[in-house]
Amino acid sequence: MTSPAEVRAACRAGHDLPTSGLAPGYTQANLVVLPRDWAYDMLLFAQRNPQPVPLLDVTDAGSPRTALAPDADLRTDLPRYRVWRDGELAGEPTDVRDLWTGDLVAFLVGCSFTFETALLDAGVPVRNIEQGRNVSMYRTNRPCRPAGRLSGPLVVSMRPVPGELVPTAVQVTARMPQVHGAPVHVGAPASLGIADLAAPDFGDPVRAADGDVPVFWACGVTPQAALMASRPPFAITHAPGHMFVTDVPDAAHRRP
Amino acid sequence: MTSPAEVRAACRAGHDLPTSGLAPGYTQANLVVLPRDWAYDMLLFAQRNPQPVPLLDVTDAGSPRTALAPDADLRTDLPRYRVWRDGELAGEPTDVRDLWTGDLVAFLVGCSFTFETALLDAGVPVRNIEQGRNVSMYRTNRPCRPAGRLSGPLVVSMRPVPGELVPTAVQVTARMPQVHGAPVHVGAPASLGIADLAAPDFGDPVRAADGDVPVFWACGVTPQAALMASRPPFAITHAPGHMFVTDVPDAAHRRP
Repeated sequence: MTSPAEVRAACRAGHDLPTSGLAPGYTQANLVVLPRDWAYDMLLFAQRNPQPVPLLDVTDAGSPRTALAPDADLRTDLPRYRVWRDGELAGEPTDVRDLWTGDLVAFLVGCSFTFETALLDAGVPVRNIEQGRNVSMYRTNRPCRPAGRLSGPLVVSMRPVPGELVPTAVQVTARMPQVHGAPVHVGAPASLGIADLAAPDFGDPVRAADGDVPVFWACGVTPQAALMASRPPFAITHAPGHMFVTDVPDAAHRRP
Repeated sequence: MTSPAEVRAACRAGHDLPTSGLAPGYTQANLVVLPRDWAYDMLLFAQRNPQPVPLLDVTDAGSPRTALAPDADLRTDLPRYRVWRDGELAGEPTDVRDLWTGDLVAFLVGCSFTFETALLDAGVPVRNIEQGRNVSMYRTNRPCRPAGRLSGPLVVSMRPVPGELVPTAVQVTARMPQVHGAPVHVGAPASLGIADLAAPDFGDPVRAADGDVPVFWACGVTPQAALMASRPPFAITHAPGHMFVTDVPDAAHRRP
């Protein structure tokens, strides 16, 4: 499946597919859906924490439509969702039409899958793709700037990068601030409060090659960590690795 | 007055000073203050229209404090304010302490004064500074993307730039997206719906030199035009040209 519309049609038909590598060259997005009463806190949380929460679009309350893919339906077109009640995981359905009300606002947040294509184009190997695994993600000891009732730790994704290519990886991703931008940290996981790289909090462990250095980027799972910490009565998100595939080319996020 | 704190202290003492050229090298900001009930619409309007409304900070409801200048008080530290009731101008006080309630949220929006220093550094003359005038600003025929109850036209600032320096002006400002970024239009005011450059909707007329071309940037007065069009019951803004001077160096907005 090479077009975003094909991927979304497959999801709508009930296929449950991790989206890494699908519709290459098109932007993928994290999803967070909250009641209108919590939407202001989420919007402010994003404004105050733009590196982990780069907003690509926010829907009108009740609408399942987004400017990122005008023919898509956010209630059916992701492969798998997570439903949260009072900050606890309450289900992982493949369709949320029965849960959608006129009170819900959807936030679409940039995803680092988008810059993986740019890294590969620049000759930087992406170990999680080579190994066919989800990227490793970790809660850090760095708090996000709180917004109203929402607070929580910065979550990072980690990619092992050959030491001589770290400067390239920094420069390539710095040009893409809408999908997390430059790394937040290089090389010393303990100073982020990460005790064991082999035990990620989200996603899969990824093996480093000899000479690889761990490079950490702000991660779009940060809002999920804030939901778990702040416990809104109801929320829907994508399931990790099961992103919304948009019609927006990756290149739209690369600045000159 | 060369330091931001000196400018703010003078404002607090009652001096009414246009801020163009004051505290050079420090970021100046547009101010929009709205009741909490309208704050979500404003925050969403900014998210959907980042070029005219680049948010630098949003306060907690009721707080006159901003992370952009921790010792400042937003109720006293601007030289002049505008008070709006039902979208109509209701006053231009120099202090809004008596109008401030626990229900108000302040939005600080990037200002193009910030990139004028960068233009001068790059050898691009800034005619409004040469002529000691406020920049010329115009309502355009381009609608912003609406957000809830807020809608209105894009407002642009115009600077006459020598034709051979237009590419430099584009590149210099493109590196500063937090203060409106690259121009939205070059050279043909009629296609923006601007009939007469000598009759700006805000600010002063500015004379072009021979060989100058009009260059248009998205403008932080856009939210004021939205207030006039959308008529919230109450709002406070800065008076045009009377900005909030922050402690943030201009260079913080220039990307590498």
